[in-house]
Amino acid sequence: MKSEWKTENSEDKFHDECGIFGISKHPEAARITYLGLYALQHRGQESAGIVTLNNGQLNQRQGMGYVADVFTDKNLASLKGTAAIGHVRYSTTGESNLANAQPILTNSARGEMALGHNGNLLQADKIRQELEEEGAIFRSTTDSEVMLHLLARSRLPDLGDAIREVFGRVLGAFSLVLATPDGIWAARDPFGVRPLCLGKLDGGWVVASETCAFDLIGAKFVRDVNPGEAVHMHGEHLTSWTIVEPRETAHCIFEHVYFARPDSKVFEKSVHASRYQMGQQLALEHPVKGDYVIPVPDSGATAALGFASISSIPFQFGLIRNHYVGRTFIEPKRSIRHFGVKIKLNPIRELLENQRLIVIDDSIVRGTTSKKIVEMLRNAGAAEIHMRIASPPTISPCHYGIDTPTYSELIANQMSVSKILQYIGADSLAYLSVEGMKKAVGAEVGFCSACFDRKYPLPDTPRTPQKELFELHRT
Amino acid sequence: MKSEWKTENSEDKFHDECGIFGISKHPEAARITYLGLYALQHRGQESAGIVTLNNGQLNQRQGMGYVADVFTDKNLASLKGTAAIGHVRYSTTGESNLANAQPILTNSARGEMALGHNGNLLQADKIRQELEEEGAIFRSTTDSEVMLHLLARSRLPDLGDAIREVFGRVLGAFSLVLATPDGIWAARDPFGVRPLCLGKLDGGWVVASETCAFDLIGAKFVRDVNPGEAVHMHGEHLTSWTIVEPRETAHCIFEHVYFARPDSKVFEKSVHASRYQMGQQLALEHPVKGDYVIPVPDSGATAALGFASISSIPFQFGLIRNHYVGRTFIEPKRSIRHFGVKIKLNPIRELLENQRLIVIDDSIVRGTTSKKIVEMLRNAGAAEIHMRIASPPTISPCHYGIDTPTYSELIANQMSVSKILQYIGADSLAYLSVEGMKKAVGAEVGFCSACFDRKYPLPDTPRTPQKELFELHRT
Amino acid sequence: MKSEWKTENSEDKFHDECGIFGISKHPEAARITYLGLYALQHRGQESAGIVTLNNGQLNQRQGMGYVADVFTDKNLASLKGTAAIGHVRYSTTGESNLANAQPILTNSARGEMALGHNGNLLQADKIRQELEEEGAIFRSTTDSEVMLHLLARSRLPDLGDAIREVFGRVLGAFSLVLATPDGIWAARDPFGVRPLCLGKLDGGWVVASETCAFDLIGAKFVRDVNPGEAVHMHGEHLTSWTIVEPRETAHCIFEHVYFARPDSKVFEKSVHASRYQMGQQLALEHPVKGDYVIPVPDSGATAALGFASISSIPFQFGLIRNHYVGRTFIEPKRSIRHFGVKIKLNPIRELLENQRLIVIDDSIVRGTTSKKIVEMLRNAGAAEIHMRIASPPTISPCHYGIDTPTYSELIANQMSVSKILQYIGADSLAYLSVEGMKKAVGAEVGFCSACFDRKYPLPDTPRTPQKELFELHRT
Amino acid sequence: MKSEWKTENSEDKFHDECGIFGISKHPEAARITYLGLYALQHRGQESAGIVTLNNGQLNQRQGMGYVADVFTDKNLASLKGTAAIGHVRYSTTGESNLANAQPILTNSARGEMALGHNGNLLQADKIRQELEEEGAIFRSTTDSEVMLHLLARSRLPDLGDAIREVFGRVLGAFSLVLATPDGIWAARDPFGVRPLCLGKLDGGWVVASETCAFDLIGAKFVRDVNPGEAVHMHGEHLTSWTIVEPRETAHCIFEHVYFARPDSKVFEKSVHASRYQMGQQLALEHPVKGDYVIPVPDSGATAALGFASISSIPFQFGLIRNHYVGRTFIEPKRSIRHFGVKIKLNPIRELLENQRLIVIDDSIVRGTTSKKIVEMLRNAGAAEIHMRIASPPTISPCHYGIDTPTYSELIANQMSVSKILQYIGADSLAYLSVEGMKKAVGAEVGFCSACFDRKYPLPDTPRTPQKELFELHRT
Repeated sequence: MKSEWKTENSEDKFHDECGIFGISKHPEAARITYLGLYALQHRGQESAGIVTLNNGQLNQRQGMGYVADVFTDKNLASLKGTAAIGHVRYSTTGESNLANAQPILTNSARGEMALGHNGNLLQADKIRQELEEEGAIFRSTTDSEVMLHLLARSRLPDLGDAIREVFGRVLGAFSLVLATPDGIWAARDPFGVRPLCLGKLDGGWVVASETCAFDLIGAKFVRDVNPGEAVHMHGEHLTSWTIVEPRETAHCIFEHVYFARPDSKVFEKSVHASRYQMGQQLALEHPVKGDYVIPVPDSGATAALGFASISSIPFQFGLIRNHYVGRTFIEPKRSIRHFGVKIKLNPIRELLENQRLIVIDDSIVRGTTSKKIVEMLRNAGAAEIHMRIASPPTISPCHYGIDTPTYSELIANQMSVSKILQYIGADSLAYLSVEGMKKAVGAEVGFCSACFDRKYPLPDTPRTPQKELFELHRT
Repeated sequence: MKSEWKTENSEDKFHDECGIFGISKHPEAARITYLGLYALQHRGQESAGIVTLNNGQLNQRQGMGYVADVFTDKNLASLKGTAAIGHVRYSTTGESNLANAQPILTNSARGEMALGHNGNLLQADKIRQELEEEGAIFRSTTDSEVMLHLLARSRLPDLGDAIREVFGRVLGAFSLVLATPDGIWAARDPFGVRPLCLGKLDGGWVVASETCAFDLIGAKFVRDVNPGEAVHMHGEHLTSWTIVEPRETAHCIFEHVYFARPDSKVFEKSVHASRYQMGQQLALEHPVKGDYVIPVPDSGATAALGFASISSIPFQFGLIRNHYVGRTFIEPKRSIRHFGVKIKLNPIRELLENQRLIVIDDSIVRGTTSKKIVEMLRNAGAAEIHMRIASPPTISPCHYGIDTPTYSELIANQMSVSKILQYIGADSLAYLSVEGMKKAVGAEVGFCSACFDRKYPLPDTPRTPQKELFELHRT
Repeated sequence: MKSEWKTENSEDKFHDECGIFGISKHPEAARITYLGLYALQHRGQESAGIVTLNNGQLNQRQGMGYVADVFTDKNLASLKGTAAIGHVRYSTTGESNLANAQPILTNSARGEMALGHNGNLLQADKIRQELEEEGAIFRSTTDSEVMLHLLARSRLPDLGDAIREVFGRVLGAFSLVLATPDGIWAARDPFGVRPLCLGKLDGGWVVASETCAFDLIGAKFVRDVNPGEAVHMHGEHLTSWTIVEPRETAHCIFEHVYFARPDSKVFEKSVHASRYQMGQQLALEHPVKGDYVIPVPDSGATAALGFASISSIPFQFGLIRNHYVGRTFIEPKRSIRHFGVKIKLNPIRELLENQRLIVIDDSIVRGTTSKKIVEMLRNAGAAEIHMRIASPPTISPCHYGIDTPTYSELIANQMSVSKILQYIGADSLAYLSVEGMKKAVGAEVGFCSACFDRKYPLPDTPRTPQKELFELHRT
Repeated sequence: MKSEWKTENSEDKFHDECGIFGISKHPEAARITYLGLYALQHRGQESAGIVTLNNGQLNQRQGMGYVADVFTDKNLASLKGTAAIGHVRYSTTGESNLANAQPILTNSARGEMALGHNGNLLQADKIRQELEEEGAIFRSTTDSEVMLHLLARSRLPDLGDAIREVFGRVLGAFSLVLATPDGIWAARDPFGVRPLCLGKLDGGWVVASETCAFDLIGAKFVRDVNPGEAVHMHGEHLTSWTIVEPRETAHCIFEHVYFARPDSKVFEKSVHASRYQMGQQLALEHPVKGDYVIPVPDSGATAALGFASISSIPFQFGLIRNHYVGRTFIEPKRSIRHFGVKIKLNPIRELLENQRLIVIDDSIVRGTTSKKIVEMLRNAGAAEIHMRIASPPTISPCHYGIDTPTYSELIANQMSVSKILQYIGADSLAYLSVEGMKKAVGAEVGFCSACFDRKYPLPDTPRTPQKELFELHRT
């Protein structure tokens, strides 16, 4: 049986759904975009696409899989042009097909437009239904196609005006890039839920979901695209306007907990610093005696260092990661073991035997991986296992562009901490508090932490189905 | 240099642009459709697609290339359902991409619809522009997408009514299949330009561009779908209605000249019989002395037999075709020879040396292939070469769904027959007359022969740009 | 179920096992060899390989599949050098793997040597066993590896002497090409069983299994490599010597019956002429009344024309071949029909209905295809079906390099002609006589016709297992 | 320009050349071997192969690339049998082709044998030449083929005796697995240079290069195969004998420095422990003031922790690794930057700015990567950069199975430490001493450290070419 690795392991995390990139002026715009997407690959591995602008015409290339697989020297060479946008996409299984790959390229009365976005429209289904009732047809299930319909239908002749009209009205979390014969455009919702950074490279302008993309191409970070702002990047020129007055920001705090790369600045703050401080805060809130602090690689590593720095307990690499784990893995047919975690992580028995371990992970979603890790460490001879989670219990799904399980799959919505402890089989378990987490990112307000506290900051966010809720942690 | 074979040889023909297939009830609908497309492969080799209907849901699979390459045992197995439609597509280079593959599957207020067609809407650009002005967006450059927009916008709740409304109004040549949760639909323009046959298989209904598809699956030919007729095939039931009153038919005569397989019945007449009679008529119109009648394989073979039967000159296979010619072929870099025809055809010197040859081809488009064949035969020692073409000079492009070169590329629009003779270097050259061709297919009226006589039967067919015209043959 | 097409149809023929090519001097030796193999593709479709000689070093590229698939512009460019040899291979299923692809490249005390051959050593197993007893190891099951072992072990310092020593002693049918740092070598067994032609191109020398390879590259045919002759082609120079005194030749007559391309000269005689005369002879030996002579395409076509010329019955294309049949084909799961022949051939009902047909095929091996063709023609309405086979009954396997079924699979070794007639279901059946066949190729002697008469011309050919023999036809 | 990533980065390391695995009894032997190779993938990524033993017959599957790419559910299913051996191979570019993939399967007078090895024969060229003089031919450039020749030529009828005869005589470093119709065999040279571990799984025996393979399949480590020992594993039985009296062991110390996975036991010692202690020893030998200890990920991480533990300077992840780096990477055409290290590592500016950094790497080979890392850290604002290398200067190539550059490419053979410091541009540079390294692995004797001290422990190791030597460090 060929089992997709992600069903076993990566899926036991929340997932970002996209990374976006744009550049307004560069002799090798396609190759620079390729590099940008390469750096943003962690934000989406299902499909990748680039659209370039060449003499008023848009050229497209997209495919399923990794950036390194979709693009070749030859097909990048055919993507001529001096401006470009790019997109990497993660997707839940059901919707996984090429028709949903972005940027989506269309023709309309506005001419050619290509759009890629990160985020989620709150009323996409309703808008889609309204559009269909007016005769629209849809070939994908993406919000990008909805956005393109709205832009095509706006009566305002100027695209900038149309962007203001359309995106000033729709509700949701979105950071987007748009290519037209007139250049590259970018915009961000008024709450600034999803990140979008603005930079300069060799006289042209660049936008990207995270600054790590700028580091690779050698671009200089200028500032974030502001919440509610749109920009038009035409060669060396940048025009900015407000599409809608910004509200109190609702930056996604999970970008700092898990999604973003630690070498990125997101929402103008170092992700590494946030995670280190989450680990420190965790040590302050939930101290425990032990011989070693060990991270669940790689996402727990930075927080584990922070935890160790406060607790003065030595940090060790107790679980070793196999660097050659591919996307698929074939299990023995009659096996009763599940190889999911085992193929990826292996404990060092010599180090761990008879030791009291403090194991740091960034989050627990379904709990299945944590359970297997505890088992694995027990088998390696650990004397005690104390799980410490560098974020609060995840009790609520995201409606703003993150792939999260349903209420019933979120273990922390179904069980009390003591029941979770019992399920995963550790000796103790503790989570960082919501307040501690906010302290670590350095802001009491301005962040969305709805997946931890159910306080959805955007109006008209779908009401939580009551029967799915399980009230324990927040009381 | 890797040269696409078709640029050298196959392109020196007119080309059909599509083949379509549909079946309303079969436990293995996808596999039967695969077989149907396999038999229709000569009508389009660029992309292939199948959409099945399974419990009210449509499933799609499409890809670039041959039917045998796009579909595998595994992906056919995933195309569950008991009804299906399929499509093979030929395309000019510029528009060659997966976004144009058919059947196109969309969502709209009518729910899921998938459409595949063969033919050409006369006012597609105008309709497209009107739709865009009303806010529509387009992701392909196909008429199928235009048709789906029109169906989605019709206010008539019943799909049958909507089909009558939409296809009763649009002008053009089209044979189409449509899949919806309610079953399989098919329709044909009132002139019956492109073929569409109706048959029965094991209690269900089938439609296909040519009867050779029925032969392979073992279906029984019933009749053609009539010009201006639409049918709804729901399981064992067939409902038929008139979408628009049929006009005097304008069946594409080139289907009998070159496109269709000789083992097919098209417009309810045997293609083999037409071609044989074209060859006979050609021998009556343009007799010539010679030692052998040899066909340009394979398209000239049937006519050559007909020619030989009247002239009493022996038929011989003087040009041998390499059966292993693939889609690409690598030429030596410094070669001054063009391998185009040579890689495909080789003369038998022992047979041809010092002989007077009558060479039969179905048509001459640009003349480049004929020129090379004459050269090749001269090099093989032919004493005389008399070219006889089993159709009239092609002087005008098609507007009804056939891929033809522009006026300036059609050698017969640029040169008199005597100049063409000089260009290709034969000893004599003669074409079948328009009247002779019509006699061969057995009908003075009811056929479109506009590519031979510029008499475009549909109203509002684009006016011929005068500067491109070259008046010689028709005066 | 994905059924390999060849198991259904092509396998019901005898098969050539290889085609070889060599060129001594050309700035684009690899590309010329590629062209040569392209023209020889009908002699082997399982694997293809080229070895070039560049500044005293041999470079190799080989792969499974067609020449057009194995070689790309890029890998041909990496095959630098001005001399080359190439090979295409057919193989029975069991031994189908890359380790058996040729030319085989080895290192030994003689330095680098690469060898490709067509044919079969009679005592290969015995020699292999002797070599193994002396400590040799084998990585393939090919005779080529045996030949390389023997050359490596010869104590004669000069390679020409070693070739004489080795190939003067081994018994069997072989035509071979060899590349070493000193140039290209070719040799042929003293009976001349398998073909090998010598030609010139732009100052260099070429060898190939058939002259059709020379036609494509524009080389001039000089003569056959003589039975028992070896040649060394070094740039513009050709050295020839006798490895063993030639015996009475035993040219494989099946090359003229079926294997070779009709546009080739083989054994210095036109293949087309032989087949045409076989058809004529068949008409003289077994006349029959009928309305049409129709060939089983494509191999029966030339003989059918010959038959028609004598019988004065019109030749017609009654069975149409699908030109897009790929290597694999997926059948419906529950189908009780076998699609084998049907996917490839389709009768023209309009032509054949109520007609008396004389069907010409080149040979019958197992009879399964003939049976299906008769069925297909009956279903198309044929009034009478008279099978005429343009060669004698195939009653015996080949030991000289042809892939033939065992005695028990050869229908003509198991059944009398009247039983075969009954099995295939035709109205009459007749075969060409051995004498008639020899008359057609123009030689009473000098040909091996053992598959038709069990007269194996080479000494020590394995004795026929008596129990497998079935004595009917030869008495 | 598509640049192979390894030319930029991984190649600036020494490289193991192989990993081997064998299992004597398991219902899913091929799948267990697949798992074993998956865990050993770090030892070789060029090709992978498995040979299974099924009812006295050997079945083979091999291919270029990663284990996860070479093997599919389908081809593993076709590798039937209850015993198997497997191999992963790394190779220098020149010899990279499928002919060299292992295990190599041959036929000889001993019947079928398949062999895979890790290591290097010292006199392979001489033996190969002798074999060639006796008439042997070679199809690969591997020592495995030489070993198979020697086994085939041994006159001793018992394979165990032949193994003793052959491997008792050849000189070199080798750990090998062998499959024959009689079962699985394994052997190790008398110096025990390369690792080979013995374990048990479900009643059968397993061997593997490292214990991490046992961890994944759930096998229990029993002991190392002893230097000079051979074992025959037939189902549940194990027979052991001495092929040659063991000498003072010469275990490859670089396995502990870099090659082996830290979660493995190699030479019966934890690799993690060795590396941690190397870091500690390094801190003791070369203390330096700084703000952070940062590792070059991932190979420097364990030593960096050891260094931090002694120096009491905080360990931090200052360089972040992109987890999605594929095997190839396309650079901008006009770029003057080299993306080699940059695509893989990115510094955290916020953390490193104005800090004094102690950077720990496991070794320096050519120095190019170190230079780029120093540049990268300077650009990120580092105040001081102190490089500390957790092994001594690499001054000499390996002759025992490791891929190392020539003397002239080893920077430490060409420059003094102060010159290297100048070249890489750091503020200070220091290496661990040979004595310190040995202390860390816990053994003054019994290890080969020739790459650090030129003391080659095996007799007849090739003399160092004097002109290549550069005498600085060891005086």
